[in-house]
Amino acid sequence: MALRTKLTELFGIAHPVVLAPMGAATGGKLAAAVARAGGLGLIGAGYGDADWLAREFDLAGDARVGVGFITWSLAGKPRLLDLALARSPVAVMLSFGDPTPFAAAIKGAGAKLICQVQSVAQAREAAQAGADLIVAQGSEAGGHGASRGTLALVPAVVDAVAPIPVAAAGGIADGRGLAAALMLGAAGALMGTLFYATEECLASPAAKRRLVHAGGDDTLRTTVFDIARGYDWPAPYTGRAIGNDFTRRWHGREGELARVASAERERYAKAAAAGDVETAVVFAGEGIDLIHEIVPAEQVVTRLVAEAEACLAGVAAVRAP
Amino acid sequence: MALRTKLTELFGIAHPVVLAPMGAATGGKLAAAVARAGGLGLIGAGYGDADWLAREFDLAGDARVGVGFITWSLAGKPRLLDLALARSPVAVMLSFGDPTPFAAAIKGAGAKLICQVQSVAQAREAAQAGADLIVAQGSEAGGHGASRGTLALVPAVVDAVAPIPVAAAGGIADGRGLAAALMLGAAGALMGTLFYATEECLASPAAKRRLVHAGGDDTLRTTVFDIARGYDWPAPYTGRAIGNDFTRRWHGREGELARVASAERERYAKAAAAGDVETAVVFAGEGIDLIHEIVPAEQVVTRLVAEAEACLAGVAAVRAP
Repeated sequence: MALRTKLTELFGIAHPVVLAPMGAATGGKLAAAVARAGGLGLIGAGYGDADWLAREFDLAGDARVGVGFITWSLAGKPRLLDLALARSPVAVMLSFGDPTPFAAAIKGAGAKLICQVQSVAQAREAAQAGADLIVAQGSEAGGHGASRGTLALVPAVVDAVAPIPVAAAGGIADGRGLAAALMLGAAGALMGTLFYATEECLASPAAKRRLVHAGGDDTLRTTVFDIARGYDWPAPYTGRAIGNDFTRRWHGREGELARVASAERERYAKAAAAGDVETAVVFAGEGIDLIHEIVPAEQVVTRLVAEAEACLAGVAAVRAP
Repeated sequence: MALRTKLTELFGIAHPVVLAPMGAATGGKLAAAVARAGGLGLIGAGYGDADWLAREFDLAGDARVGVGFITWSLAGKPRLLDLALARSPVAVMLSFGDPTPFAAAIKGAGAKLICQVQSVAQAREAAQAGADLIVAQGSEAGGHGASRGTLALVPAVVDAVAPIPVAAAGGIADGRGLAAALMLGAAGALMGTLFYATEECLASPAAKRRLVHAGGDDTLRTTVFDIARGYDWPAPYTGRAIGNDFTRRWHGREGELARVASAERERYAKAAAAGDVETAVVFAGEGIDLIHEIVPAEQVVTRLVAEAEACLAGVAAVRAP
């Protein structure tokens, strides 16, 4: 059995599963592993380090992978897009900003344009910009995002942009979530946190362990890590992370943190380098209740699809004559 | 066809559909209409007016209905529970507080105990308290709730409290959402906002019109209406409502609003009485993108179930050999 959707058709892949391009975490090996397992793997260009990006494309080898950018950050370093397009990515995903200035170059290079949105209004803009796939990302997602919840956002975006295919993102971490996404009218799901807990993910072992042992109740949306790291994220974006000593100290006191940011930034950078997850951020979505171990990415894809298949096959038991 | 789940078995009803007990909005006629359509209808006792509650039970007539309380409010007026139990409700739902002090009386009276929770930790407490059904309510929900999103919360609660059945709530406003809830492992769904847009709902025509014309992007979680109305909601609860002049003026300036609350309270009460929805609250969930008209409640239930059936029947097209 397999799950066939507009997403699998669009990319010529086996499973409606997309790996989120997590900055500094989704490298070439992880993207390639997901691609080889039958999903769509996207390298996470993050805030844009050209050397890092070139190396990760090299590490992906001959796997058919794509790449994802933080749109507002890319706007300040537009040459990174040329670097990426020179690698013939299967797709380029743009999140958090206006995709319009980059759409023509991406599509002209033969890559599919994926736009991630956090509201119905943004979804309409992405459709206007020519998106081939729109990712409707709910607030449950780990890392950066906004306030709308996945379950209501996805069908509203599906209705707003039809017939453009939509992938659901945010809070999906097992086959139940993937099956639910399909019921909502999505053509598949994009997942980050679930792939953070893989052997190939570039995050530190300490961060992966923290993620596996924490629960969704322990996460929160916050800007304190962006302030500490000196990233100037525009509203309305916040990052979902696992609460730690740093959030307990600063969340809700963002103005005060900004005033002492230079000193805190130094302390933060040292802690991050030392793998101190009580100070450094561990971005994670609310789906971490469903993640119990660190495994190879291929195993994640295989299990996810098998679970979704089982949920869908179980429909017969629910539907009674 | 019908959808058979642990929820339909528990209550001996035709459809896995529960009407949320919205304070001041879910009266006896609405609860009875949902019950007659094959769902579970719960009268919303809200902040607890004994005369109102007695009248609404009368209006439900001989329909098998239940009732829902705001737990922290009920704790201050415990006799309301006796009044409700004297009407032999099929179920009593408790939300927003510790259900333990009331559980024995409810179950002793032969009613099923439904506990609505907003986190995995609360779900474990509800299971300990003896809940017959646990409603996992996500942040997308209209009215009061907390921060976790429905899509990730539901499977986590299902895992935490098995084999107690779980209903999903928050952001479900059509058959796609109901089908998705079943994929997540829920035994059904509880919906409020969808039933707000019914002829039987006690909300004002102006409020219903506002709800039908607004979108999910227009809603926000806020405490400003509670401050204006003088309700002392405990943390972490906020209310999701449609943004209006009042939220644009006060959201984010809650401390200041609290200082002028007595004057604002008077102005607010006058506006509410006049049906001025730019000042008075219209509680609504993010699912309002999917709600386009005000119809009889029976039609809502029938359409909801037919849509969910169609989604589940469509699984065959997704699953390819």
